[in-house]
Amino acid sequence: MNFCSQCGGTVTLSIPEGDNLPRHVCQCCRTIHYLNPKLVIGCIAEWNDQILLCRRSIAPRYGLWTLPAGFMENGESTRQAAIRETLEEACARVDIQQLFSLVNVPHINQVHLFYRARLLDTDFAAGQETLETALFLEDAVPWQDLAFQTVTRCLRAYFSDRRLGRFVFHEEDLPPRPLKEHRRD
Amino acid sequence: MNFCSQCGGTVTLSIPEGDNLPRHVCQCCRTIHYLNPKLVIGCIAEWNDQILLCRRSIAPRYGLWTLPAGFMENGESTRQAAIRETLEEACARVDIQQLFSLVNVPHINQVHLFYRARLLDTDFAAGQETLETALFLEDAVPWQDLAFQTVTRCLRAYFSDRRLGRFVFHEEDLPPRPLKEHRRD
Repeated sequence: MNFCSQCGGTVTLSIPEGDNLPRHVCQCCRTIHYLNPKLVIGCIAEWNDQILLCRRSIAPRYGLWTLPAGFMENGESTRQAAIRETLEEACARVDIQQLFSLVNVPHINQVHLFYRARLLDTDFAAGQETLETALFLEDAVPWQDLAFQTVTRCLRAYFSDRRLGRFVFHEEDLPPRPLKEHRRD
Repeated sequence: MNFCSQCGGTVTLSIPEGDNLPRHVCQCCRTIHYLNPKLVIGCIAEWNDQILLCRRSIAPRYGLWTLPAGFMENGESTRQAAIRETLEEACARVDIQQLFSLVNVPHINQVHLFYRARLLDTDFAAGQETLETALFLEDAVPWQDLAFQTVTRCLRAYFSDRRLGRFVFHEEDLPPRPLKEHRRD
C-alpha cells in the first residue's frame, strides 16, 4: 500500500497512538488503513455417497480439483457465500447443512470455512472458473490432483467422520510449507 | 474508495470482465480493489460459574459491557486472535476451548466468532480500551447494558446451553435494526 484510498496522499507504516502494530497511515488526512484476513467459504456438496468437485480453469492451480469455494463478499452471510460460490463454480444448487470445518491459513491471511451441503439435483455444470465438475465416490477422489491443502484436509476429515457415522466440527491451522516446496494451500 | 492504493490513480466502480459485481478499479494501473467482510473474534472466559466482561472505554458504545473481542489481524489464527484480544482488553490469560458461535452481521460486513475459554487466573485488569473488567454470575450479567447484539445473543445461547448441561455450536444471522432505532450490533 503506497497511497491513501480516501485522499490520494502518501501512506507510510507507523504505529498509531494506542495501537501496538504498524499500520498504513495517510500522511495527509491521517486515515489509518487496516489490513485484515479474508474469509474463503465453500461446501462439500453431497449426492448419496458422492461429493462434488470442480477442476479449476484459472490460476492458481489451473487444472487441479477443488471444492466449490471462494472469497466471501460484503453484504452476504457465510451460508450465502457458500451457496453463491457453489452456483458460480459448479452451476449447482445446494441446501447448506452444518459448518464442518474452519482452517486457519495465517501465512496468507485467510480463514477457510467449509459447510456440509446437500445437492438439490444433478443439473450441475462447469462455471466460468471451472473446466469440469463431477461427483466422486471416496475411492475415486483425485487426491494427488487436489488444488489446495485446505481442501485435502477438509475431505480427509469428512470421509473419516463419515466412516465413523457422525460429523463433528473440525478446526485446524495450516502451517506454511517449506519454501523450497511448491506452495499449495 | 477514491484513489488506488498502489499507484495513486483515480478509482471508479465497474464490473471487471468475468466478474458479476461492481469493483473499485484503478483507471491508471487497472488494479481491482476487492472489499471483503472482516472477522471479529472474542471469547467467553469462564471462571467457575462466572464469565468475564469488559466495560468499554472507547466509542462506539462507551460505558457499555462486552465480551473481550476485536478485529482479527493478518498473520494470526482465529484462536490467537481470541487470546490476544482477551489479553489486550482484560489483561487476562485464557485457555481457548471450542468455537461456540458464529454470528453473521452482513449489513456491516462482519462475521463474529466467539470461543469458549477457561480463565487461567483472576489477575485480570482493565486494558487500554476498557474502563473496568469483572466476573459475572448469570443473574448478575448487565443485560440492559450490553454493548452489542451479537454479545447478547452469544451469552443467551451460552447460558441456555449451560443449563442444558452441554454446549453445541451456534450459528445465526443478525438482521439490521430498523433505521429509527439506535443501532447496536
